[in-house]
Amino acid sequence: MSGTPTFAAPSTFLGVAPRADAAVVVAGVPFDIGTTNRSGARFGPSAIRHASRMLIDGEHPAHWTSPVDLPLADVGDFAIALGDIAASLKLIEEQASAYAHLVTLGGDHGITLPLLRACAGRRGPLALIHFDAHVDTWPDNFGQPYAHGSMFYHAINEGVVDARRMIQIGIRSPVQRDVYDWTLGQGVTIVAAQEAHEIGPAAIASRIVEVVGDAPVYLTFDVDALDPAFAPGTGTPEIGGLAAWQAQSIIRKLVGLNFVGMDVVEVAPPYDVSEITALAGATMAWEYLCLLAASAGWSRSAARSP
Amino acid sequence: MSGTPTFAAPSTFLGVAPRADAAVVVAGVPFDIGTTNRSGARFGPSAIRHASRMLIDGEHPAHWTSPVDLPLADVGDFAIALGDIAASLKLIEEQASAYAHLVTLGGDHGITLPLLRACAGRRGPLALIHFDAHVDTWPDNFGQPYAHGSMFYHAINEGVVDARRMIQIGIRSPVQRDVYDWTLGQGVTIVAAQEAHEIGPAAIASRIVEVVGDAPVYLTFDVDALDPAFAPGTGTPEIGGLAAWQAQSIIRKLVGLNFVGMDVVEVAPPYDVSEITALAGATMAWEYLCLLAASAGWSRSAARSP
Amino acid sequence: MSGTPTFAAPSTFLGVAPRADAAVVVAGVPFDIGTTNRSGARFGPSAIRHASRMLIDGEHPAHWTSPVDLPLADVGDFAIALGDIAASLKLIEEQASAYAHLVTLGGDHGITLPLLRACAGRRGPLALIHFDAHVDTWPDNFGQPYAHGSMFYHAINEGVVDARRMIQIGIRSPVQRDVYDWTLGQGVTIVAAQEAHEIGPAAIASRIVEVVGDAPVYLTFDVDALDPAFAPGTGTPEIGGLAAWQAQSIIRKLVGLNFVGMDVVEVAPPYDVSEITALAGATMAWEYLCLLAASAGWSRSAARSP
Amino acid sequence: MSGTPTFAAPSTFLGVAPRADAAVVVAGVPFDIGTTNRSGARFGPSAIRHASRMLIDGEHPAHWTSPVDLPLADVGDFAIALGDIAASLKLIEEQASAYAHLVTLGGDHGITLPLLRACAGRRGPLALIHFDAHVDTWPDNFGQPYAHGSMFYHAINEGVVDARRMIQIGIRSPVQRDVYDWTLGQGVTIVAAQEAHEIGPAAIASRIVEVVGDAPVYLTFDVDALDPAFAPGTGTPEIGGLAAWQAQSIIRKLVGLNFVGMDVVEVAPPYDVSEITALAGATMAWEYLCLLAASAGWSRSAARSP
Amino acid sequence: MSGTPTFAAPSTFLGVAPRADAAVVVAGVPFDIGTTNRSGARFGPSAIRHASRMLIDGEHPAHWTSPVDLPLADVGDFAIALGDIAASLKLIEEQASAYAHLVTLGGDHGITLPLLRACAGRRGPLALIHFDAHVDTWPDNFGQPYAHGSMFYHAINEGVVDARRMIQIGIRSPVQRDVYDWTLGQGVTIVAAQEAHEIGPAAIASRIVEVVGDAPVYLTFDVDALDPAFAPGTGTPEIGGLAAWQAQSIIRKLVGLNFVGMDVVEVAPPYDVSEITALAGATMAWEYLCLLAASAGWSRSAARSP
Amino acid sequence: MSGTPTFAAPSTFLGVAPRADAAVVVAGVPFDIGTTNRSGARFGPSAIRHASRMLIDGEHPAHWTSPVDLPLADVGDFAIALGDIAASLKLIEEQASAYAHLVTLGGDHGITLPLLRACAGRRGPLALIHFDAHVDTWPDNFGQPYAHGSMFYHAINEGVVDARRMIQIGIRSPVQRDVYDWTLGQGVTIVAAQEAHEIGPAAIASRIVEVVGDAPVYLTFDVDALDPAFAPGTGTPEIGGLAAWQAQSIIRKLVGLNFVGMDVVEVAPPYDVSEITALAGATMAWEYLCLLAASAGWSRSAARSP
Repeated sequence: MSGTPTFAAPSTFLGVAPRADAAVVVAGVPFDIGTTNRSGARFGPSAIRHASRMLIDGEHPAHWTSPVDLPLADVGDFAIALGDIAASLKLIEEQASAYAHLVTLGGDHGITLPLLRACAGRRGPLALIHFDAHVDTWPDNFGQPYAHGSMFYHAINEGVVDARRMIQIGIRSPVQRDVYDWTLGQGVTIVAAQEAHEIGPAAIASRIVEVVGDAPVYLTFDVDALDPAFAPGTGTPEIGGLAAWQAQSIIRKLVGLNFVGMDVVEVAPPYDVSEITALAGATMAWEYLCLLAASAGWSRSAARSP
Repeated sequence: MSGTPTFAAPSTFLGVAPRADAAVVVAGVPFDIGTTNRSGARFGPSAIRHASRMLIDGEHPAHWTSPVDLPLADVGDFAIALGDIAASLKLIEEQASAYAHLVTLGGDHGITLPLLRACAGRRGPLALIHFDAHVDTWPDNFGQPYAHGSMFYHAINEGVVDARRMIQIGIRSPVQRDVYDWTLGQGVTIVAAQEAHEIGPAAIASRIVEVVGDAPVYLTFDVDALDPAFAPGTGTPEIGGLAAWQAQSIIRKLVGLNFVGMDVVEVAPPYDVSEITALAGATMAWEYLCLLAASAGWSRSAARSP
Repeated sequence: MSGTPTFAAPSTFLGVAPRADAAVVVAGVPFDIGTTNRSGARFGPSAIRHASRMLIDGEHPAHWTSPVDLPLADVGDFAIALGDIAASLKLIEEQASAYAHLVTLGGDHGITLPLLRACAGRRGPLALIHFDAHVDTWPDNFGQPYAHGSMFYHAINEGVVDARRMIQIGIRSPVQRDVYDWTLGQGVTIVAAQEAHEIGPAAIASRIVEVVGDAPVYLTFDVDALDPAFAPGTGTPEIGGLAAWQAQSIIRKLVGLNFVGMDVVEVAPPYDVSEITALAGATMAWEYLCLLAASAGWSRSAARSP
Repeated sequence: MSGTPTFAAPSTFLGVAPRADAAVVVAGVPFDIGTTNRSGARFGPSAIRHASRMLIDGEHPAHWTSPVDLPLADVGDFAIALGDIAASLKLIEEQASAYAHLVTLGGDHGITLPLLRACAGRRGPLALIHFDAHVDTWPDNFGQPYAHGSMFYHAINEGVVDARRMIQIGIRSPVQRDVYDWTLGQGVTIVAAQEAHEIGPAAIASRIVEVVGDAPVYLTFDVDALDPAFAPGTGTPEIGGLAAWQAQSIIRKLVGLNFVGMDVVEVAPPYDVSEITALAGATMAWEYLCLLAASAGWSRSAARSP
Repeated sequence: MSGTPTFAAPSTFLGVAPRADAAVVVAGVPFDIGTTNRSGARFGPSAIRHASRMLIDGEHPAHWTSPVDLPLADVGDFAIALGDIAASLKLIEEQASAYAHLVTLGGDHGITLPLLRACAGRRGPLALIHFDAHVDTWPDNFGQPYAHGSMFYHAINEGVVDARRMIQIGIRSPVQRDVYDWTLGQGVTIVAAQEAHEIGPAAIASRIVEVVGDAPVYLTFDVDALDPAFAPGTGTPEIGGLAAWQAQSIIRKLVGLNFVGMDVVEVAPPYDVSEITALAGATMAWEYLCLLAASAGWSRSAARSP
Repeated sequence: MSGTPTFAAPSTFLGVAPRADAAVVVAGVPFDIGTTNRSGARFGPSAIRHASRMLIDGEHPAHWTSPVDLPLADVGDFAIALGDIAASLKLIEEQASAYAHLVTLGGDHGITLPLLRACAGRRGPLALIHFDAHVDTWPDNFGQPYAHGSMFYHAINEGVVDARRMIQIGIRSPVQRDVYDWTLGQGVTIVAAQEAHEIGPAAIASRIVEVVGDAPVYLTFDVDALDPAFAPGTGTPEIGGLAAWQAQSIIRKLVGLNFVGMDVVEVAPPYDVSEITALAGATMAWEYLCLLAASAGWSRSAARSP
């Protein structure tokens, strides 16, 4: 450990400074008005950045890489439209389109739809690795068409995501059977939380690799995939979820996939406890960045050109 | 103290049961997506009801009246439209119109516009007693026209409120000078928080009586009128506010005004501490109900007919 | 997801309305004065009800049933006698006797004795599935005969519970060896927490089925069976407990048992964190109700007649 | 500041060691099963002791005395009977009778009855200075005769307290008018919270001196006399209470009264915030001890002989 | 309110961007290892910056000025030496010397010594306005010479502060009489907290103006000058302190003094509640900046040249 | 359960009284100024003692021993030097040298260096069982040579610990590869957290026994070895850690090792939740004491002579 203590680091993600040649860009989206239960994820970006200070110093103990080796920048928070879902989604998509490879700190899960639209706009239908307690393929959210329970319904219908290359891990909430069946019917692979506990991380990672193949793949990590013990600071908690080590173990085994973007969503600081949820969110983004650096298939030059 | 302990009371406001002849109705509005800072007031209604258990047993120690003497009912929470401000305001107005005399538990302050519209629809322009840290007469809220910083701009422009019979108590936030001047220019009386501390409750009550006269008057109590020490559980706190006893003292001196409705807004339980903000909110509604019962001018039969 | 958001639902358990033909009844018991360490479980019923809002919408993702399909009602909280254990237990038994099939939200674990008495009164000695960190078969509680550490000592001695058809899961607290040996000597099966972690949910479920057989069986879920990470909001926490997913996995495998009642106890909201313990308690009751609906052996008509 | 930092001090009140010749004795009473709302005061003694570390080092800035100059000891917590009010009150009275001058850390307010009995047993009817939000002269507590809302009803009826030399400061809860009138009718002086804010500490202190005269006087400080902003950690909070400085100002002006004992009650740590209520409780006891040392009328030798 | 919501603002103080011509500079000092009780103030700078978002939009409602009109920059946090008081103080002084007019966000109060040294180095002995619960003129801190209880002992002895032009407001902790007398003997004016409550803000402001005169004056605001109700998030709380409105009222009346620097210290986020202490700290810095802008005597060009 | 409830027990560890013939001594070290992130562990000793009340009554349910059978005393907290690492380490070593067998309650992990020096001074190089998220073999801590990230670097270099008999369990933080390789190069066995989850407690216990052999062995338990879900109250949390039951399971299998001392460190109460981290710390010390009592190799007479 050298230099100044990390608690005096800049308040960006991992303390990174803006840099002109950043191929990978971290951005926050302080948006949470589509939540169906507890809100507060609008403060997720700043909490995740603050918690990320624990991860600045040193290398990943399995990959032996570090995000600070990447051409990485934190561009701050995206503008959103107060109290207006439709206008906000449009703004998010526009801003996201400016970056080749985004790691986004949410915000509620509804932001993933415009992020996927922006990402797929450059690449065609995407594979999707989706950690969550909820399928998020409801056609609507208590009447609201575009919010954090329906974005994958739209993403699949819009062709932004290729459902046959989409896998969900940690699913366990109450759900209408027709919604569940529709999801399966589209070709989505669902690994329910109970199954995840039984088969273990290695088997899940294998299934992910099998589903995703070599397609361009986006990773969306809803922190409520974790059990509330590990992530109390979230809006729609469901007990019975993953332990943090399980999620880490799965992600670490995905070296070599063709990643094109990632988000961590639903960290709701007003419900957090001693920053443990924010730290979980920050760590998942850090795991992803270390994975990027470790992946043979990741090309800095390729990522640089939008 | 007789009967079962109040912690086993029904979970309605003050434990009141629905009753057919209720002239005064308590309702909750779990709506908070227009907040410009911290959200959470959607859980205000249930928190205020829970805290109200402290106030069930016994009479008001100054008025010697009790809300349970009133023909009072708690009708639960109003339906709102998830993630949609315009649709929610419309729904709130419709539901509010069914009741002759409403005491509403918010929710963010944006709900007061449809509540005033419903109330004025029956009575013409209303006088308004407005406790708050903010003038809430901004023309918009970071671009959003209808939210918790602009509803009195609209209420005045729409003629729902008579600005010359409107008084604000506790104002202290940063504010654009043109917004402040516009408010004064409409005829609104502003008692800034610092002035409130200096002149004291009796002088403020006198000024209220003078401004309001015998007009039908609505009382809107934004809990951030209180200092964050007394009301930490709110979305847009500003230091330097009223002490709880000051607000109580002012309200107790308003016996005889022609009250037509009341709301308590901006209680945000995720930020509350041991329910003290919820209790402050519940107590203000209880003070209002005891005041109603004490006021000579209040007629149960008159209030009963919508 | 249709209709109004669940955060605007009635404040009953799962938002259920009272119904005349309710065969299964939810009641709260706000009683906690027998706790040997931290109190607060008197507020368990309202906290569990509030947290249950997360579970209203949708079906159980393994059983594909829903509690709202059952003839279910929430009758509110039972009256108790302030500061008087003996009188309270008597009151609880009397009130419980009015219902054929009760799901009770505690309250400290001492309430299970009168609940069992009422339940057994109609059916004879009961089998018992007992999730807990503590054996609760002490002859007394620091001199107090009837409290939350001794109710199964009495239940066994009174013949309310058939010790040979009683199984405890999650046991791990310090305990006097003679108390432990007495319990074993009565025929009780004990699955200590360490053993539970080692053998896994399926083996435990098998053992339960073996012990219980086709006897009428009561399920008592002390939330401290879970590790404090999953249930910090409780009075006598012990580390090393079950994960939430393990408890759920066990319960889901009990389809077909002859259930006659259930309680969730020791949820102490003052020690809870972002409602995760209340949600765990609510979910266990929801798992039980979904299990009831799924069980072939459960007869709505049978349950209806007291 | 010399020696070891006070955060390493012994965990007694003010870090005082037991001493054989202690004329003034601090004791805790971890009893709270008579509370009519939130419990938790059983942990008051340890929390108050911990918070008292802030007050170890230095002298009182008005009296220029220090409790450590007194012959002071902390004898730990009194034994109580789990779950049994009557047996606990008996135990408390017995233990209290062993000490000539007790400063007791509660515990709920119900403990003051046995403390007064023990104290009056040596001295005849006592004058009483009673800080509280509640009159605590109800004949019963939801049916329970001896609990924290009725002890002064009994103390007056038993002749333990001389009602004409009893004064209550901070009263403001809802109360049945007949209870209030009975209290006044006995001769008790009531300074309601609103009046306290209006007339100020000096006038209140004068009134106390006038009421108490030179009678042996006991001071009972229910921390809910303070506003919940200053004392959130309590069981039956009522808004509109005293500021901490007001209570301190009043007590500091009571030099020369003939004090015979004191208690601080209703500090409920589960509801406290960063120990501010515990610190308020500790400071009131410290103010009392400094006042004792400053009072001309206080005789160490007299106090020493039971 | 225009533009993007302030919760999406940059994470600097008031969201200000760095600017080349900044005459007034905000810096954080994440240092707290000299605290004599609770630590945590190292996280004060980031918490104060986050809370300052509430103050970005609009003008000061008494001065009608705004910090964003000033040539203002936030340069982030100063480097400190982990676990080493002496080295840290040296580093702080060096870094502070680079700026003409600093507004510093602490950190514990020990940082004010190097800040004063740097400030006085350019200007000679300074007048000092010192808000605090403690005199902070102890010769040492439990043996440690340079920490948060002794820095004004050193500042006076070193001639960095002119004791006859130094005034302390809010003093109330236990203190050794010789320390208190030494402070008075040096010529320091002490306004004890009880006196502050009695004489009111206007009288205190007059006394400050009288003491300070036209000397270059530094304002140091220890947030524990406020009562713990208003500022629970601090390391050495003492009950009986100032209300937030009183401190604001005093500072607002100091227009025209010759201010040369300011700090806000002892905001300890781990003990804060819903950011109210951080907001109090942020608001005091904002009051100072608005005061600067309002003061006739403040010259931007003069401040610009170190 | 007999006697008085444990919540009225003395505030020592497990309520034990000092005793002249104590062979095993519990001491606290309220020191935390070397932490590289969040501080607060100075309050660890009192929090652990308070939480230990849950463990007083009864025997260990696997070993059937109890710490109160041991000749055990709690000597309170060691003196430390405020704000001075070097002087504090010296003081700690001196005080520790007075006891033959110490169980120390930290405090940050930096205290383990002087504890090991004192322990090894009597016995030569020690074997070390080290539970932690971090290797703690950095040569320095952001420039500070002696703090909680470097003590095992020094312990190995000083020959206080025999690196070939040292094993680390739970390691998972970011770390510089050269630091990690140096540690392995010295002969230390590292069981990373992910490996720990995969191989399970029994395999880990076997590896410990193999590494340690019959050497005198010290157990140091950094509570951040546990996942933040199980131990949120700590300074440098890392997700992905051990479950509490895993740590217990490992320790229980170490019967018969030649233990010479133990510490529990990094319990930081300001970040704890409902005492669960303090309880985890207390339980680990209790597990150790029960293990001591159960170990055939442990000789009370041997331990008694320094």
